[in-house]
Amino acid sequence: MNLYVVRHAIAAPRGTPGIPDNDRKLTRDGISKMKQVAAGLRSLGYVPDLILSSPLVRARQTAEILLQAFGKKIELRMVPALAPGGVRRDLYREIVSLEDRKVKNLMIVGHQPSLGEIAGEIAFGAAQSYIELKKGGFCAIELESMQGTPKGILVALLAPSILRNIKRKAPIARI
Amino acid sequence: MNLYVVRHAIAAPRGTPGIPDNDRKLTRDGISKMKQVAAGLRSLGYVPDLILSSPLVRARQTAEILLQAFGKKIELRMVPALAPGGVRRDLYREIVSLEDRKVKNLMIVGHQPSLGEIAGEIAFGAAQSYIELKKGGFCAIELESMQGTPKGILVALLAPSILRNIKRKAPIARI
Repeated sequence: MNLYVVRHAIAAPRGTPGIPDNDRKLTRDGISKMKQVAAGLRSLGYVPDLILSSPLVRARQTAEILLQAFGKKIELRMVPALAPGGVRRDLYREIVSLEDRKVKNLMIVGHQPSLGEIAGEIAFGAAQSYIELKKGGFCAIELESMQGTPKGILVALLAPSILRNIKRKAPIARI
Repeated sequence: MNLYVVRHAIAAPRGTPGIPDNDRKLTRDGISKMKQVAAGLRSLGYVPDLILSSPLVRARQTAEILLQAFGKKIELRMVPALAPGGVRRDLYREIVSLEDRKVKNLMIVGHQPSLGEIAGEIAFGAAQSYIELKKGGFCAIELESMQGTPKGILVALLAPSILRNIKRKAPIARI
């Protein structure tokens, strides 16, 4: 299984008066940039069968932009384990169970620092091998082992500035 | 300083009769694919001021393809520390010394597994955080600390299959 990891796009700043942290929405600029990021991911072939998202507004909005860009019927499911402070073991259990359901390409949308810790733990076996992801940033991991904590190989890491500005010259057969 | 890491392109197989390992050349396919990879790196703005290469033929040839694609005057220097079995501390000393020489973007061309160990050690502080690089594969690290072993943040990881197939939609201001 391939694991595609996406950090939510640019949202209203933490501490904006009258907006609880969990309710922060993407800014207009964040939405516009995320649409370009999603187009870049699509053109590189990073299109999942299923998206698991943090239920927080800014993550859910990001996931919805991705869904729209991919333009095919993809299931989107909210997963509390992807919210800040979520239980990582629950996420890993979910990922492992999806292999039995024949999911080939799974995308998760969430928050730093937990998303980078999850990616680092899966790719390098240690949560301190934290992977930096900018807002709208992406990495891909080829999962190899599904015992307990999934293990895999980091195969791509792409900043949003790159994803927003690329297009494919020819179909990519294999990534 | 940005550190751009490139693994040499596809070469004649190890153990080819009559060809010592150090003399293995890039195959015709390897040369052709590496030219496309180099064009991709150029279009993403990953153009160095200086290239340090392993002196082995397959790495030197890879570095020369990169130089040609970048199309500007870039110094190329052979560094024994980048050959298989090279002394990593010598490479780190060299990298640290280049900062004083105002090198902003340094590219190193070498071999696995040492190149992935070097990148892993710089990005994650542990050589066991090995970064997989396919032949012609690329990663970029933003160096932050230059005391002894350089430390930095992994900001990009791109497989050759992607680099060969992208082009820029617009100039990339910041990567």
